[in-house]
Amino acid sequence: MAICNFMSDNAAAACPEVVEAVIKAAPAQAAGYDGDDWSRQLDARFTDLFGRPCMALPVGTGTAANALALACLVPAWGAIACHPEAHIQVDECGAPEFFTSGAKLLLCPGANGKLTPEGLSAGLASHRGDVHQVQLAALSITQATECGTVYQPDEVAALAAHARAQGWRMHMDGARFANAVAHLACEPAAMACDLDALSFGCIKNGGLSAEAIVLFDLALADQLRWRRKRAGQMPSKGRFNAAQIIAMLDDDVWLRNARAANAGAQHLAAAVHDRLLYPVEANELFVQLRPGEADRLRAEGFQFYDWGAVGSDEARLVVSWDTPAAAVEQLARALAAG
Amino acid sequence: MAICNFMSDNAAAACPEVVEAVIKAAPAQAAGYDGDDWSRQLDARFTDLFGRPCMALPVGTGTAANALALACLVPAWGAIACHPEAHIQVDECGAPEFFTSGAKLLLCPGANGKLTPEGLSAGLASHRGDVHQVQLAALSITQATECGTVYQPDEVAALAAHARAQGWRMHMDGARFANAVAHLACEPAAMACDLDALSFGCIKNGGLSAEAIVLFDLALADQLRWRRKRAGQMPSKGRFNAAQIIAMLDDDVWLRNARAANAGAQHLAAAVHDRLLYPVEANELFVQLRPGEADRLRAEGFQFYDWGAVGSDEARLVVSWDTPAAAVEQLARALAAG
Amino acid sequence: MAICNFMSDNAAAACPEVVEAVIKAAPAQAAGYDGDDWSRQLDARFTDLFGRPCMALPVGTGTAANALALACLVPAWGAIACHPEAHIQVDECGAPEFFTSGAKLLLCPGANGKLTPEGLSAGLASHRGDVHQVQLAALSITQATECGTVYQPDEVAALAAHARAQGWRMHMDGARFANAVAHLACEPAAMACDLDALSFGCIKNGGLSAEAIVLFDLALADQLRWRRKRAGQMPSKGRFNAAQIIAMLDDDVWLRNARAANAGAQHLAAAVHDRLLYPVEANELFVQLRPGEADRLRAEGFQFYDWGAVGSDEARLVVSWDTPAAAVEQLARALAAG
Amino acid sequence: MAICNFMSDNAAAACPEVVEAVIKAAPAQAAGYDGDDWSRQLDARFTDLFGRPCMALPVGTGTAANALALACLVPAWGAIACHPEAHIQVDECGAPEFFTSGAKLLLCPGANGKLTPEGLSAGLASHRGDVHQVQLAALSITQATECGTVYQPDEVAALAAHARAQGWRMHMDGARFANAVAHLACEPAAMACDLDALSFGCIKNGGLSAEAIVLFDLALADQLRWRRKRAGQMPSKGRFNAAQIIAMLDDDVWLRNARAANAGAQHLAAAVHDRLLYPVEANELFVQLRPGEADRLRAEGFQFYDWGAVGSDEARLVVSWDTPAAAVEQLARALAAG
Repeated sequence: MAICNFMSDNAAAACPEVVEAVIKAAPAQAAGYDGDDWSRQLDARFTDLFGRPCMALPVGTGTAANALALACLVPAWGAIACHPEAHIQVDECGAPEFFTSGAKLLLCPGANGKLTPEGLSAGLASHRGDVHQVQLAALSITQATECGTVYQPDEVAALAAHARAQGWRMHMDGARFANAVAHLACEPAAMACDLDALSFGCIKNGGLSAEAIVLFDLALADQLRWRRKRAGQMPSKGRFNAAQIIAMLDDDVWLRNARAANAGAQHLAAAVHDRLLYPVEANELFVQLRPGEADRLRAEGFQFYDWGAVGSDEARLVVSWDTPAAAVEQLARALAAG
Repeated sequence: MAICNFMSDNAAAACPEVVEAVIKAAPAQAAGYDGDDWSRQLDARFTDLFGRPCMALPVGTGTAANALALACLVPAWGAIACHPEAHIQVDECGAPEFFTSGAKLLLCPGANGKLTPEGLSAGLASHRGDVHQVQLAALSITQATECGTVYQPDEVAALAAHARAQGWRMHMDGARFANAVAHLACEPAAMACDLDALSFGCIKNGGLSAEAIVLFDLALADQLRWRRKRAGQMPSKGRFNAAQIIAMLDDDVWLRNARAANAGAQHLAAAVHDRLLYPVEANELFVQLRPGEADRLRAEGFQFYDWGAVGSDEARLVVSWDTPAAAVEQLARALAAG
Repeated sequence: MAICNFMSDNAAAACPEVVEAVIKAAPAQAAGYDGDDWSRQLDARFTDLFGRPCMALPVGTGTAANALALACLVPAWGAIACHPEAHIQVDECGAPEFFTSGAKLLLCPGANGKLTPEGLSAGLASHRGDVHQVQLAALSITQATECGTVYQPDEVAALAAHARAQGWRMHMDGARFANAVAHLACEPAAMACDLDALSFGCIKNGGLSAEAIVLFDLALADQLRWRRKRAGQMPSKGRFNAAQIIAMLDDDVWLRNARAANAGAQHLAAAVHDRLLYPVEANELFVQLRPGEADRLRAEGFQFYDWGAVGSDEARLVVSWDTPAAAVEQLARALAAG
Repeated sequence: MAICNFMSDNAAAACPEVVEAVIKAAPAQAAGYDGDDWSRQLDARFTDLFGRPCMALPVGTGTAANALALACLVPAWGAIACHPEAHIQVDECGAPEFFTSGAKLLLCPGANGKLTPEGLSAGLASHRGDVHQVQLAALSITQATECGTVYQPDEVAALAAHARAQGWRMHMDGARFANAVAHLACEPAAMACDLDALSFGCIKNGGLSAEAIVLFDLALADQLRWRRKRAGQMPSKGRFNAAQIIAMLDDDVWLRNARAANAGAQHLAAAVHDRLLYPVEANELFVQLRPGEADRLRAEGFQFYDWGAVGSDEARLVVSWDTPAAAVEQLARALAAG
């Protein structure tokens, strides 16, 4: 019995283009600390991708990307509005608080892992904002969300308008940005036109060890450089991280990989369409299993995480860029037989 | 005219064994977040290397290794005794202060970049240690030092005895630990037997993107794990960093590389033995150039950093594991002709 | 028309005993930095009051007391379970995050501003506590609560047992501790026997400028001293703060003042017993006003804060130790006539 | 034998005007949190004193004043140039590092506790200021200095011009600002015209429990308010601190007190003019005692701190605003007889 891994896209392989880029960057000497030819291309590559001036700096994890970006946008006495399921709230061991020197995350409700202007207003209704309270300074949304859903461009625009009206900065955790853009089949620029900073994810999507912080407010560029160095996120052989990111952008490898993962998820979704907890719009499914079904699936070699409360029989299924089509097909059948 | 780079070992290539290890780790899926087979070997590999129980965790930079290690050893109201030339003081943009939440570095003098018990006592003579002052909590030394010198085992032992007598923890910045061990031709254990934590450098020595924090006080193991996660230094595909480190340890690649670099430095040292600022014991030389010599060397294609005060005609020359023997020979002749 | 102030006990006068103590401490020289006779009495006085060894250090605000106490109990990667209405969450501008270097507050529900073991379990049900998450390290409760209610001794004991079972530390925000003890007519020790640290409030209760941190875990004593100094909360003329606190303890002035405030609140409560939002157990009332009633009361000279959502016609009424009985009687009649 | 205390002005009494102000502020209710009549006067009073717009906020200690002011002027990745003897370096248990979230103090030499442009340049000669290093952001000087000397207006102006040319902010630790102004017999404005922030000391000079942060860069006003609240330095009954400060300013009590202390120091200085370590310009003397003299003086009832290295026979003598003239005379004779 083969093991079929639907636990996490963090378990995926690195894709050939990325590995090839590392191999090519390895044998020659190159200037250290972002002085190399790869690192020096990044700003231009992302400026090209997003159609407006930006700076891009590699870091080693999505947590670092989020926390460094937020630290540039929010003072220590500030607050970040986010969803209760946000990765920055739930899965970063307090990194945003560490990097911001103690800012607070204020949680606002929203269906399907998505925030709305109304949800923000409701969640912050009792926040007075006087000197005794932290000062709201930024909105952070995740695209695709932690529930496997995707904000439509008009939803992002509405949130951005709301944020602007309040004087907030706007950050997007794009650990699965590629999956969102692939789902929407939109220009990347359409997703990023209102942002101050984007955590552009590569690792889950076939990368090896680099994510990119894309900073659109260039007034913060020096601050981000200093914060990154100070955080131990400025590698001496920066070319290896930069080369990976460039390999993802070249020939739209990032979108190709994301489309593959999304397609697998859609295949599975069709098999359980009547028991999905959220719409399936990226590469994650959240499924209401039947009693005993989880055990049976695992006995058949499928690996995945339980979800929700103990005993709820909810499961999370993640399809990666490299999940074999046969494994997806096999799981789809097992679920349909559920 | 070929460019001969003596600027920094940070510009060196990644060595074939390291690249090969990354290639091998790439194509298969593997458990995320240190659950993979490579990451799970690290503790045993370093326990073996150092002859006593320890934990080893990869991080992305030497700055992160130093700052995370120190944060485990020193409270926010604590102080770290170190040399004025220490990398943690001079070249980490305040990372130790950031990770420790504001501890202080107290600078103590020492010839050739090396601390001594006497230098520590002199440097701290006016430190009272009452409630109005930060509390001395750790000693951090660099091996090999920022001056290209190497502590002898008895020198480390004397410092460790001094630290123990004061109740201080002991950290070693081993960005060039390999060069020191290669120079001393000693057991690695002899260099680490008194340490609470070691930043074990790989990147300058042929690595790609991973250094290791080696923690000997296992009571701090959980704290280090949490701090590392919180610092965005726990990559989801941890196998790529772990595999690099293992490749360095296998067949003593780390020592082979360091020996090559050290040998190049000795070759150069012989050519300028009467105008060295410090003894040459690792892979760095600090040389008193003659007026005009720097310009002439650069015109001949040699690259290096000026050192010391403006106009001092001092230069730093660094030999890497991959600096071609021909380049070293060429520079040795140019210097001898100086 | 006289102004009758029911806005906050922070607006109250300093009571004569406290002022007298300051006057007595003023004219003579005395050793600085807690070396004076008043400061040196504090540990003994609180040890006496609580029937077990403790250390007591004055600070300038309740916010400082809470944040310093929590910083001693919770690491930077830790979490504090508290009520969504907790002062530390709502009204301290992120001081707990600042002093702890970025710990998180995790909010748990509870009726009438009070936490319960069940509420804690419910609120933390989805908290996994693995390395990706902050580590629960303390429970903080407010006594009397922000809703003007008081935990019964068995309620505190149940929370303490729950906290102990989880390995959490326990902190009590006692900004209105006096009002709670006065209400319960219990021994102070009965309220504090399970605590690691207590913020013992004086200022709202007739004090002038000093609160006390009472630390029961003496293993943390030095840490608290260093943190307090480092936070700029160790005054050079410490005698003035210590003298105030001693004056509050002498002859149970603290309980006398609290009883007066509580009695006024009971008087008012009787007049609006059918429209109270929470039971009245200390010196605060939360009242459902009738449409137009707020305006009418203000026109009659009564001052108070609106509460809850805009348009909810909820009001908070606070009685201080020095609120004139006539003012209370006048407001009681006005409310009864409402 | 009477005890004659020359240990510290921190041991001094509170002066009658200050105590009277507290007494007057005590019995009435007043709006909390700086809403009272005293707090609301402070900005105008200091604007008047210094002849230019400023904001003044009371805090509880000089350490808090310094650290909060610096935190507004310097980012976490910043550096503050100061003297090795600076109180912020030596006697605040890392408060500047805590409040700034980890900025560094870079120490520059200077005779008699005073910095000069040349000393700054020398001390920072090897600071490159690239991305690997902290960014110099402020100069902090102490007036009067920790050596009992006073910067002349032209010396401050030269430092300010140097700071401006480098783009640094400028802070003055004025724990003994009154003694400096009294010594110079200048307008206070002449001492503060180049500053971004001043820690205006009251406590050593006859105050009770309040210092003032005077902020001249009003663009930082909100930031300072939030940082102060967050630091637990915004008392609910703020009137007591504000009233003390106003009492010091009224009728130039602050200068009267400082002149008294300075005069006592001059009297002593005349008795030991040939063995002073530094010029005596404020209320502190540093004296080279003769072997055995310290013991003899203590046996005669004089209290003071040893200074310098153990066995150096150096002493610090501090005269306070309230040191009895007879005590000064007695010590002067004892020293003259030395």
